[in-house]
Amino acid sequence: MSLHVEILSTGDELLTGQIVDTNSAWLMDRLWDLGVMVRRKTLVGDDRQDLAAALAETTARAEVVVMSGGLGPTEDDLTAECVAAAMGVPLELDEASLAAIRARFEKLGRTMTPNNAKQARFPRGATILPNQLGTAPGFRVALGRAELFCLPGVPVEYRGLCDEAVLPRLAARAGAVPAARLVKLIGVPESHADQAMRPVMDAPEHRGVRFGYRAHWPEIHVKWSVPGPDAEAHAERILGEVRRIFGDAIFAEGKDDLAPVVVARLAARGETLALAESCTGGLVAELVTSVPGASDVFPLGVVTYANAAKTALLGVGADLLAAHGAVSEPVARAMAEGARDRAGTTWAAALTGIAGPGGGTPEKPVGTVHLAIAGPTGTQTWARRFPGDRDRVRKTSAYDVLNQLRLLLRDR
Amino acid sequence: MSLHVEILSTGDELLTGQIVDTNSAWLMDRLWDLGVMVRRKTLVGDDRQDLAAALAETTARAEVVVMSGGLGPTEDDLTAECVAAAMGVPLELDEASLAAIRARFEKLGRTMTPNNAKQARFPRGATILPNQLGTAPGFRVALGRAELFCLPGVPVEYRGLCDEAVLPRLAARAGAVPAARLVKLIGVPESHADQAMRPVMDAPEHRGVRFGYRAHWPEIHVKWSVPGPDAEAHAERILGEVRRIFGDAIFAEGKDDLAPVVVARLAARGETLALAESCTGGLVAELVTSVPGASDVFPLGVVTYANAAKTALLGVGADLLAAHGAVSEPVARAMAEGARDRAGTTWAAALTGIAGPGGGTPEKPVGTVHLAIAGPTGTQTWARRFPGDRDRVRKTSAYDVLNQLRLLLRDR
Repeated sequence: MSLHVEILSTGDELLTGQIVDTNSAWLMDRLWDLGVMVRRKTLVGDDRQDLAAALAETTARAEVVVMSGGLGPTEDDLTAECVAAAMGVPLELDEASLAAIRARFEKLGRTMTPNNAKQARFPRGATILPNQLGTAPGFRVALGRAELFCLPGVPVEYRGLCDEAVLPRLAARAGAVPAARLVKLIGVPESHADQAMRPVMDAPEHRGVRFGYRAHWPEIHVKWSVPGPDAEAHAERILGEVRRIFGDAIFAEGKDDLAPVVVARLAARGETLALAESCTGGLVAELVTSVPGASDVFPLGVVTYANAAKTALLGVGADLLAAHGAVSEPVARAMAEGARDRAGTTWAAALTGIAGPGGGTPEKPVGTVHLAIAGPTGTQTWARRFPGDRDRVRKTSAYDVLNQLRLLLRDR
Repeated sequence: MSLHVEILSTGDELLTGQIVDTNSAWLMDRLWDLGVMVRRKTLVGDDRQDLAAALAETTARAEVVVMSGGLGPTEDDLTAECVAAAMGVPLELDEASLAAIRARFEKLGRTMTPNNAKQARFPRGATILPNQLGTAPGFRVALGRAELFCLPGVPVEYRGLCDEAVLPRLAARAGAVPAARLVKLIGVPESHADQAMRPVMDAPEHRGVRFGYRAHWPEIHVKWSVPGPDAEAHAERILGEVRRIFGDAIFAEGKDDLAPVVVARLAARGETLALAESCTGGLVAELVTSVPGASDVFPLGVVTYANAAKTALLGVGADLLAAHGAVSEPVARAMAEGARDRAGTTWAAALTGIAGPGGGTPEKPVGTVHLAIAGPTGTQTWARRFPGDRDRVRKTSAYDVLNQLRLLLRDR
């Protein structure tokens, strides 16, 4: 039986739609790698009564409760007080924590308020979890049948303390860590991926393996977690099956994103890329340059939204634009070839399309996109008709061209 | 006393970190406008026992429970079954829903499986909430002391059904809708905004007003909700105070984003913009072109990552680059002026900086960015040293240049 873990978060801002709680998903993902699925997650506001009730309920059910929020300096921050009340113990000042908070304020050149001293008060008997990244230390206590971790809600502090103080302890309690694998797919429709994985997921020899499946559009992530003594070899066997099923649609085995894969392949080959974007308006360049070190492979991108710009910067003939329209195969080709010529790069990719909501016609409805990649052995062009709104058409187009680049860079 | 509303969501995918539940934040935001703050949110997996317990607990506490998930066709989808069990009634087939599901499959040219018929079975006595956007209808029942809404988890379907069937009913139950206002700030440090708002939030004449505050970096959103008979006038008075406090830092009164404000101002003035980006790598162009109709004001952007590209495309002198380095005031100025000349636009903005993680020096550490805007009356340049990692430096830079454009376009 898996360890019973629950998550409890507190803060009015979580109940007014001001903040989407991304900490929990992060922790759940980490716990999944340990073979643990969180049983329940509860959010309550900064209310003494609601918080006390939630503390009592979660610690009565779970073996581990990971709580976040309510450790700030203001009156609304009730976590330490409510936990102490539930334990039937007083709050006590921890001199070491107070000194650390004071030192932090001095280092930042800010004045410590009396309120901040509150952050050095903990339920008697608590194990204090020092916070290198903020003023609020966390703490750990025994309450009900649970081990209760109380952490700050600020994401970087929450994650830091989880990595330091929570996950190692849960790993020890959860027992043998299963072997986990992740592959990322692109260019596969969601329904197809689901259907294709079914025989693997249902196979008797994989009983006991936990499969996870996530449509992180336009990517699909498939992961599995194998318990038991033969776990690593078993996880690798499944990887073999998944590779046979999806082949080239797998762009990463592990956590890599698509753009870093493309940049890494270019760098490994000593090659360069230029971009000529119309409908994506700079999104492809933005994705490429989000990768540290992109400057080694990417000298130049242009966003030629106007026809005149396509002509002036890329040498796309005005006659070509007049004859075929800006959204056409010949113009996509001319944009890519023009960009490659002028930038002197190994490769150049171009996109021209109708992202909407306006601009569609019966022959070229919204979602029509022409794409081209010019390279050492010629120019490849293709056309798509993507569904969805402006954002979706732009994003799908950008990922499509990066994926084609990835496939071209795999060869040779 | 405000209506006691709770949210309950079910689905293993919510507890494994595969999906971040954005539906809830959306609903909370809508409810806030009705003067209702959600009291508690609970997530449980696809487990009969956990779901039954959560249903019993939430409907014993709340007047309204909005539940989502578990209405799909598979064995894991337990919502209707568990609700019926909690009510002590059987599930009954609804012929109208079955016909609607069948028609939907026919329209999409897909085969309806026997499993899908499950989606037409509801607890006896339920009010069915037809779903125009998917196969799973929702339903509403009385359970415990609560009115329980059961909705599909797919965001577009969830939101559609909330708008149609949940929010109007909750608005009626919540009573008089308060007057709500939202302003968006930029260029104000979070701590400063908080301090500046304090006197307004603490003023005796605004007792009973609910203030919400959200650091949606690099923007800050301030909202307030005023109950009572004089609500609209009172909300406007507060708006006046907020305007006096923040002045030009307010870029929108309402839900507008920064880039649409800039595009709308350009369009209203019949003016155009070109962009020359280095460190932001296309991000500014991407933000501008995310606005429908951007093509009317934005003919051209270039991402000149390499020095040679700055020279070839923008005419930035090689001597200038050699003398000052690519990240310098003269180069930012030359990029903006070169872009404006070559694109023939009213305005051109340029950014050159060190986004990191590499490339920093003692004189020009990571985060150093030079920005320039060339316009009809000359060129304005400024320098920043932004904190944070690559993503953060890029995003802060992009918003900073858009904000300066907004301020320039306000004048005249």
